[in-house]
Amino acid sequence: MIVENSYALIVYKDKRYLKKMEPGKSFHGTGGVINFSDLIGTECGVRHGHYEIFEPTMEDIIMYGVRRETQIVYPKEAYHICFKLNLKNGSKLCEAGAGSGALTCLFSRMVGPEGRVISFEKEERHFKNSRKNIERFAEWENVDLRLGDIMDFDETGLDAAFIDVREPWLIIEKVRGFMRGSAYLGIIVPTTNQIIETLRALTDGFGDIEVLEIMLRKYKTIPERVRPEDRMVAHTGFLIFARKLIH
Amino acid sequence: MIVENSYALIVYKDKRYLKKMEPGKSFHGTGGVINFSDLIGTECGVRHGHYEIFEPTMEDIIMYGVRRETQIVYPKEAYHICFKLNLKNGSKLCEAGAGSGALTCLFSRMVGPEGRVISFEKEERHFKNSRKNIERFAEWENVDLRLGDIMDFDETGLDAAFIDVREPWLIIEKVRGFMRGSAYLGIIVPTTNQIIETLRALTDGFGDIEVLEIMLRKYKTIPERVRPEDRMVAHTGFLIFARKLIH
Amino acid sequence: MIVENSYALIVYKDKRYLKKMEPGKSFHGTGGVINFSDLIGTECGVRHGHYEIFEPTMEDIIMYGVRRETQIVYPKEAYHICFKLNLKNGSKLCEAGAGSGALTCLFSRMVGPEGRVISFEKEERHFKNSRKNIERFAEWENVDLRLGDIMDFDETGLDAAFIDVREPWLIIEKVRGFMRGSAYLGIIVPTTNQIIETLRALTDGFGDIEVLEIMLRKYKTIPERVRPEDRMVAHTGFLIFARKLIH
Amino acid sequence: MIVENSYALIVYKDKRYLKKMEPGKSFHGTGGVINFSDLIGTECGVRHGHYEIFEPTMEDIIMYGVRRETQIVYPKEAYHICFKLNLKNGSKLCEAGAGSGALTCLFSRMVGPEGRVISFEKEERHFKNSRKNIERFAEWENVDLRLGDIMDFDETGLDAAFIDVREPWLIIEKVRGFMRGSAYLGIIVPTTNQIIETLRALTDGFGDIEVLEIMLRKYKTIPERVRPEDRMVAHTGFLIFARKLIH
Repeated sequence: MIVENSYALIVYKDKRYLKKMEPGKSFHGTGGVINFSDLIGTECGVRHGHYEIFEPTMEDIIMYGVRRETQIVYPKEAYHICFKLNLKNGSKLCEAGAGSGALTCLFSRMVGPEGRVISFEKEERHFKNSRKNIERFAEWENVDLRLGDIMDFDETGLDAAFIDVREPWLIIEKVRGFMRGSAYLGIIVPTTNQIIETLRALTDGFGDIEVLEIMLRKYKTIPERVRPEDRMVAHTGFLIFARKLIH
Repeated sequence: MIVENSYALIVYKDKRYLKKMEPGKSFHGTGGVINFSDLIGTECGVRHGHYEIFEPTMEDIIMYGVRRETQIVYPKEAYHICFKLNLKNGSKLCEAGAGSGALTCLFSRMVGPEGRVISFEKEERHFKNSRKNIERFAEWENVDLRLGDIMDFDETGLDAAFIDVREPWLIIEKVRGFMRGSAYLGIIVPTTNQIIETLRALTDGFGDIEVLEIMLRKYKTIPERVRPEDRMVAHTGFLIFARKLIH
Repeated sequence: MIVENSYALIVYKDKRYLKKMEPGKSFHGTGGVINFSDLIGTECGVRHGHYEIFEPTMEDIIMYGVRRETQIVYPKEAYHICFKLNLKNGSKLCEAGAGSGALTCLFSRMVGPEGRVISFEKEERHFKNSRKNIERFAEWENVDLRLGDIMDFDETGLDAAFIDVREPWLIIEKVRGFMRGSAYLGIIVPTTNQIIETLRALTDGFGDIEVLEIMLRKYKTIPERVRPEDRMVAHTGFLIFARKLIH
Repeated sequence: MIVENSYALIVYKDKRYLKKMEPGKSFHGTGGVINFSDLIGTECGVRHGHYEIFEPTMEDIIMYGVRRETQIVYPKEAYHICFKLNLKNGSKLCEAGAGSGALTCLFSRMVGPEGRVISFEKEERHFKNSRKNIERFAEWENVDLRLGDIMDFDETGLDAAFIDVREPWLIIEKVRGFMRGSAYLGIIVPTTNQIIETLRALTDGFGDIEVLEIMLRKYKTIPERVRPEDRMVAHTGFLIFARKLIH
């Protein structure tokens, strides 16, 4: 059921909008007007005029809810990262470069109420924005967002670590120190130059190194004309993974 | 720390082995012999002769642990499915076609101790195999695996549903009845013929239909010669997603 | 050297324009004005203000010169088709569906002055447009463009055939009759439904059947940040090839 | 018609063999024995027992005929290169790194009897092998294959140039000198490190620089189960193109 002040996803053809169901407010789109008071109290998963109204998933939140001040990690990569890092109920991890906090919200879900996500952001403007996004969208109070440099951090025994900064190679050794043996380090970089530099920094303190990219191709959904969409996202980032070796 | 009878991942160059650390047993590979008694009690994430020894992740378990009697849903698709279905702590979902139980183990992790995975498998042989895999590898006792036809099932209000059978179109309407409004239905099919039939069956009881495929490209990890691997998996399956509309 | 009334390619950042060098005419773009009289008589391959001026290749002509009234066959597919059909100096082939004539111009180049391209177009409007494009851009007088239905055609011994119509399966048997033994038939279709129907029509009069698609990914060219472009064409068409068997 | 000592392509399920039709010789494969004397004088495009017999295309020759001592440029890239370089009847081009001569044979076809392909190979072993391949498979006597270093070459006004050596950046400026204004330079490299170095060397003597890769995905051809093949070639090389600017 749609409750007051919760978020709902409004779908109209190819468009999607994530809106807070504030009584008295409304949405004006190409498909007509929706008064949120008419939706509050109704079930999710309904047609409303030309619109469809759904309960938002975490993907909807990342794509249409999170306010972006930085390039975000997109769902197709984010999902892969969460599992590759082997996050589960109770995992503790650190993140270098909270950015807009989209991936942080997903980490929060994965590790649950007993887990912990320690996330660093150096830029005050991004810190403030990601804090707002995390307050609004993270499902558990398990995120410890910090304004500052991960180089000043001190911790041991973390179950995983993720790096999303411009020069990962400068902090890899430091981050390695926070991780327990066998823990996964994940890194995202947009360019091949950065892959090269990062691989150089993954010295013998890491094993089982992997570099990969994920491509997602959507198809048109008319049964009489099934074919890929004309255009697709060709690149968001390269993912690098490695497991910590103690010796 | 590696404890008796837990599983460990043994890495040797391009090879990976998931082994149960039974005292007195050993592993004989191209890199030499490992006596498991020597590993028990040591940390994970170590070099041992020419090998690297790690704590296995769920991906390792799916790839090297699960005994396969059917084509499994591979990690790259499985991860996407889990998030697209918006699974989280406490979700309840049903699965038509347990297969070898690999995806079921991942569902089990996602929904946690308070969630529930009701999984159907019609073939007795596959039922028995998937039961063994789930007993061995699922992290929570939240899987209700049933030998039988999902058409005989009766339930309402599920948070999600997943179908991995040859003719999904025959059971879509039935499965829709189990789902609450706005819940996601996921389907995997290998051929375009099946996409066509499935789209025809996704009538107006569903909205926001999506068809997609995920391609994962691995890169060689030598910093002086960064390039994609020569060969890759070109296809495992097409994913179809739709959200339930009540009216 | 740029001669009067020849075509030149004008490049400005990401934009490309194919222009006829008519004396007294000029080009007005974001990079400033170019008087064609200033270019006539100069070499190709020069900077002119903020522009670069090149002699156009056949790819430039297809992409920026051919007037399109239909979806054209793009270079990445066109190149593959030309070689797969094994076109060379002196080949004779037929084409069902001239469309806008872009592929026809490429065929014309491949078969040279002693070859022959017999191309059919049923729609008068497209016939007129493709005729204009072929007159303007084909390099040899080897194209026999006809307004009409290929079902009314009668010929034997062709070295190759290409079909670009909505329902290839209706004409495959007829076209097969025009081809010599071992000759290649090529077909382009946008949807998987059409692949299915076409494969059904490729009965035992053809061998060595192939279905494929070609994806082209472009990279950014700044040496400090080498990475794929953000977006790419995900689909133009599926290519089907088969070789004629006599018995 | 299959003539004595010509080449024929023998197809058996997924296997292909290019064989010289020498009277008295035979082929022994999983599908049985073929006596070439039985084939000589018959038409191409026939079933012969469990086999299909076709006239080979240039693609068949490159894939199954050319003896390889080096990594060859595969058809999917080779086709794109030929057109991007705008080769046609009468073009003159140079090639640095003949390798096994596969691409050279294709160049030979494209430029025809009035064209000219000047190809350099430094390694004597590769020179000898490529010479044999070119003698056997090139369709015109337009290839000038030289044992030696392209740095010792001296020529002007070439219509195109292609480089397939390990360190293209060392010879780009030299090769540029051979080319006429507006001519295309093409380069193939396997690694991203080489893209980076090559882009650094493409100084302001070139314009309209492009880097791209081509992926070819094959589909299974059973009409009831149309789907991509399970595995594909993920990478052969990156292509770099640039047009010569005079000033």
